[in-house]
Amino acid sequence: MNSADPSLLSINTATVRAQWALPDIISALARHNIRGIAPGRDQVAATGLADAARRIRDAGLVVTGLCRGGMFPAVDRDGRRAAHDDNRRAVDEALTLGAKCLVLVVGGLPRERDGRIASRDLAGAREMVRDGLGLLHEYARGAGMPLAIEPLHPMYAADRACVNTLAQANDLCDELAPDGNDGLGVAVDVYHVWWDPQLKAQITRAGERNRLFAYHICDWLVPTRDLLNDRGMMGDGVIDLPTIRGFMEDAGYRGMHEVEIFSADHWWKRDGDEVLLTCRRRHAEAS
Amino acid sequence: MNSADPSLLSINTATVRAQWALPDIISALARHNIRGIAPGRDQVAATGLADAARRIRDAGLVVTGLCRGGMFPAVDRDGRRAAHDDNRRAVDEALTLGAKCLVLVVGGLPRERDGRIASRDLAGAREMVRDGLGLLHEYARGAGMPLAIEPLHPMYAADRACVNTLAQANDLCDELAPDGNDGLGVAVDVYHVWWDPQLKAQITRAGERNRLFAYHICDWLVPTRDLLNDRGMMGDGVIDLPTIRGFMEDAGYRGMHEVEIFSADHWWKRDGDEVLLTCRRRHAEAS
Repeated sequence: MNSADPSLLSINTATVRAQWALPDIISALARHNIRGIAPGRDQVAATGLADAARRIRDAGLVVTGLCRGGMFPAVDRDGRRAAHDDNRRAVDEALTLGAKCLVLVVGGLPRERDGRIASRDLAGAREMVRDGLGLLHEYARGAGMPLAIEPLHPMYAADRACVNTLAQANDLCDELAPDGNDGLGVAVDVYHVWWDPQLKAQITRAGERNRLFAYHICDWLVPTRDLLNDRGMMGDGVIDLPTIRGFMEDAGYRGMHEVEIFSADHWWKRDGDEVLLTCRRRHAEAS
Repeated sequence: MNSADPSLLSINTATVRAQWALPDIISALARHNIRGIAPGRDQVAATGLADAARRIRDAGLVVTGLCRGGMFPAVDRDGRRAAHDDNRRAVDEALTLGAKCLVLVVGGLPRERDGRIASRDLAGAREMVRDGLGLLHEYARGAGMPLAIEPLHPMYAADRACVNTLAQANDLCDELAPDGNDGLGVAVDVYHVWWDPQLKAQITRAGERNRLFAYHICDWLVPTRDLLNDRGMMGDGVIDLPTIRGFMEDAGYRGMHEVEIFSADHWWKRDGDEVLLTCRRRHAEAS
């Protein structure tokens, strides 16, 4: 396997969110000659949308995705309408930032206003995702912003996303945008899908309809000590990253490789420049 | 949905392993009028196989499964042979105990002798599982002991089991015992499969070939604080247990409902009788 092209490295700002605000991250990426960024909406809001867009443009960064819209299921119609309104704003923000796509974490079981999960109806939540996504896709297509459905690991099915395999995301695309080339696709994050026996087949399937919008990398640590914030740096875990990159490339993906690492006990405690240097090295050596 | 038949309750001894040794558990099950047991091999060994078998027989308990064989992948041929030898012993123990099946947790990526994971080749590990399972099935079929492949949650793909969906388990059965009725089937544990969009279809598929050998219940807590030992009591989490039981019953399953709860911070710290009383109540009310 050839090694990853260093010019394809992108950084999801969550990777260094504990160290820096967005303007600092943008400066740091320039310092490390990293050409891509995927900002979080909260970080964009803290900086101000217009200011963030200007800084990113001035730095010449490719915005590999805006992170994130979604969270479609809600306990009542008002909740679903609020989600839709917020998602439209996310589309608009993605346009202002010149993002390649808006990444969608679709949401899990609906919750009460106090945060408790309100229903065990997983099939029902999945229907709300389909309906909300269909509505948002109409808006985003008109606006010209691609939507990337990100299947999340099954361990997040209840509380974060009830789309848990690439097959499911591909099925949604087939249902809502059957012809492909229609601004609805997938974000492949190795952390969520590396275990899937259908991984290669489903990446190939997405590629055939030009639905591979984003590729996110990190690693799965053994042991994993926390369900949310114990992701590993590439090379420190068990994911066969070069093989999965090969699946993506064989399926026609030519976009960037976005590093997204949530790591409360390790990387979020290190110096930000050290984290970015490590991302650069591991992207070249172990991805 | 009708409620679960109380006479179908079985207890996997891991549920109270922190409180009691196997003889105490057997006595407690009689005290609580619980008719099924699924012992762990380590607990059987601590009591002595013959003694354990006699106590279980004298108590009139149904052994819904022996927990567990498997762990097929290994870094070299010696390791795979050692696994096979141990699995043959597990089959023999299951026969002595009169178990309905030997439950198989198939193993993850192969490890070095010091415990470190030796390879990222997940497809290769899955081939080792298929080969090891095929060999063990020859032995178990001759001995008359059904083997139940238990797909484990994808969060255990690296370190516990690289069979992570019912579809994968069904595919293995189709490959190794295509006609069904051949002593190779599946154990459906809700904790591992509740999130699967294909759950109903794959339970139905297994039922059509008489491959539903065991049904394990507990619940998925939100939040889940530990990947291994934070399973919930039925009713305390988000799994729609009556619906999944309905899938099993519609697919022809008439066996028992085995409660298997690993809970370091909660149920393993409670009085054992309280745990069993709660299992009884929740089995009736929330399963």
